[in-house]
Amino acid sequence: MSTDGTRPVIAVREVGPRDGLQMVKAVLPATSKLAWIDAMAAAGVSGMEVASFVPPSLMPQMADAAEVTWAARQRHPDLTVVALAPNLRGAQNAAEAGAQVVVVPVSASEAHSRANVRRSREDQVAEVARIVAALGPGGPRIEAGISTAFGCSLQGAVPEDDVVRLGAALAEAGADTISLADTLGYAVPAQVKRLVRRLRAEIGAARFGHLHLHDTLGTALANAYAGLEEGVRGFDGALGGLGGCPFAPGSVGNAATEDLVYLLESEGFDTGIDLPGLLAARARLAEWLPSERLHGRVAAAGIPRTYRHAAPSRDTAP
Amino acid sequence: MSTDGTRPVIAVREVGPRDGLQMVKAVLPATSKLAWIDAMAAAGVSGMEVASFVPPSLMPQMADAAEVTWAARQRHPDLTVVALAPNLRGAQNAAEAGAQVVVVPVSASEAHSRANVRRSREDQVAEVARIVAALGPGGPRIEAGISTAFGCSLQGAVPEDDVVRLGAALAEAGADTISLADTLGYAVPAQVKRLVRRLRAEIGAARFGHLHLHDTLGTALANAYAGLEEGVRGFDGALGGLGGCPFAPGSVGNAATEDLVYLLESEGFDTGIDLPGLLAARARLAEWLPSERLHGRVAAAGIPRTYRHAAPSRDTAP
Repeated sequence: MSTDGTRPVIAVREVGPRDGLQMVKAVLPATSKLAWIDAMAAAGVSGMEVASFVPPSLMPQMADAAEVTWAARQRHPDLTVVALAPNLRGAQNAAEAGAQVVVVPVSASEAHSRANVRRSREDQVAEVARIVAALGPGGPRIEAGISTAFGCSLQGAVPEDDVVRLGAALAEAGADTISLADTLGYAVPAQVKRLVRRLRAEIGAARFGHLHLHDTLGTALANAYAGLEEGVRGFDGALGGLGGCPFAPGSVGNAATEDLVYLLESEGFDTGIDLPGLLAARARLAEWLPSERLHGRVAAAGIPRTYRHAAPSRDTAP
Repeated sequence: MSTDGTRPVIAVREVGPRDGLQMVKAVLPATSKLAWIDAMAAAGVSGMEVASFVPPSLMPQMADAAEVTWAARQRHPDLTVVALAPNLRGAQNAAEAGAQVVVVPVSASEAHSRANVRRSREDQVAEVARIVAALGPGGPRIEAGISTAFGCSLQGAVPEDDVVRLGAALAEAGADTISLADTLGYAVPAQVKRLVRRLRAEIGAARFGHLHLHDTLGTALANAYAGLEEGVRGFDGALGGLGGCPFAPGSVGNAATEDLVYLLESEGFDTGIDLPGLLAARARLAEWLPSERLHGRVAAAGIPRTYRHAAPSRDTAP
């Protein structure tokens, strides 16, 4: 599937095989991960974060990161294959495996930075600069993902000034794009609007990457809508609302990709994604992860008769 | 609890004892309903829809409507006691029992109108006029609730023009306020904005009542935020996300009151409601309804450390 050329396009990136699986105790075999990637690509998903390049001792679920990344590239030439890497070594491994985008997490909360990447925020910005220099032109796109941008369970509130300053430093360090992640799910809509607006003003709208939302407190779709209104055109989601950060106590699932696509398409945007196809992929995911509780309301309720009838065209919408 | 006088005020009406219980198989005894009402009032809730005045043969859960309404008035002089009534007889009974607001449902979908109140839309508008005439000045406030305003599982899409015309007819019939209900949970934010704007323009902003949202597809809080942005200052919710319409197939729970209050307070509005108090009431509700699955993310996740820190003042928010 592809976008239809008549509605504004939104990029929805499936991050389940990375962010989703890192909280899952079972180790999903590479064959199942690739079947998941196949099913998502078949449903029209054009970008997927397929793995995290971290030591297997820290995260056994990701021991096959290189294998999955490489195979995803081979099987799906049209898919943008994204991988997460917390440091230079991981980024180099991701690039060698064929990742087209490498996401480097940088925490806005100093406490989360030390828990998640074992470095201060400043040292992690320097690591981004090293990654940019080492992978160089022609290498993968480097996306800095500002985690805990809307609050942290370790630190509490995160000053917006810290996030904006961090964004400026990451742009200076040479990150191609900079994304905002609500790692804990603490964001609320007015806050999303303010911070997106400030960061885009600071780094330039074209350099703004994705909005990465969690649904801990039920606000993920409200926050996505707030982002939409501020001009955000890239969102992360995890099928079945899997996910969370093992180093951020209280972090639960990502925005469910299927609910996000339902919202975005209903709002008159073009994700290029077939919602029934997503639900079929989700049904298979439930079989691969029988002990995980999947989230998401669209799967529970079914796609309503009115789907896509609410906002026929963004041109006429407010 | 009461509002603090420094932030803009939002009226949150708990509709669980009416909309919530009508889908519950167990009959909750009046003593438990009143304990629920007591707990909500103690948490600062200032308006509650406590009962539906329908024949017990149709809805045995509501056989004690008069008893509950009367007792709620006696016990809580500061609580606005609201009751639903589908027709003149029910409205008279509600008024006699002391209801200060009578909500009369009027469907925007002809199919739902016939299923829900066994009358055409036009005949139900005429019933509103009869209720207004019969209860007269000094009687309860008459609130027409336009149900299926954002789509219907029986009819499918509901034209916005139908909703606006119905609103005008209800104003003409003498309804004091007119509310919009997303009975099925099919609304999406841009649609909420358009319809709220059009209806308020048609009937006058002061005559606009509440936004009544269901979370069937996970969009309730996004829709609430859209309503907020359009100036809506009254919302319905049901504790634990109970609810649904027995005559609208596929309708599931209301916006969970606790999640709604979390969002509204975080956005810098003043609901007058104590969130820990709501969660305490919810814990008791779970004991009274052991076979019901309650919804809501705040109760599952706990109140985050950042609560109310996201948007310190509406004055500085966009």
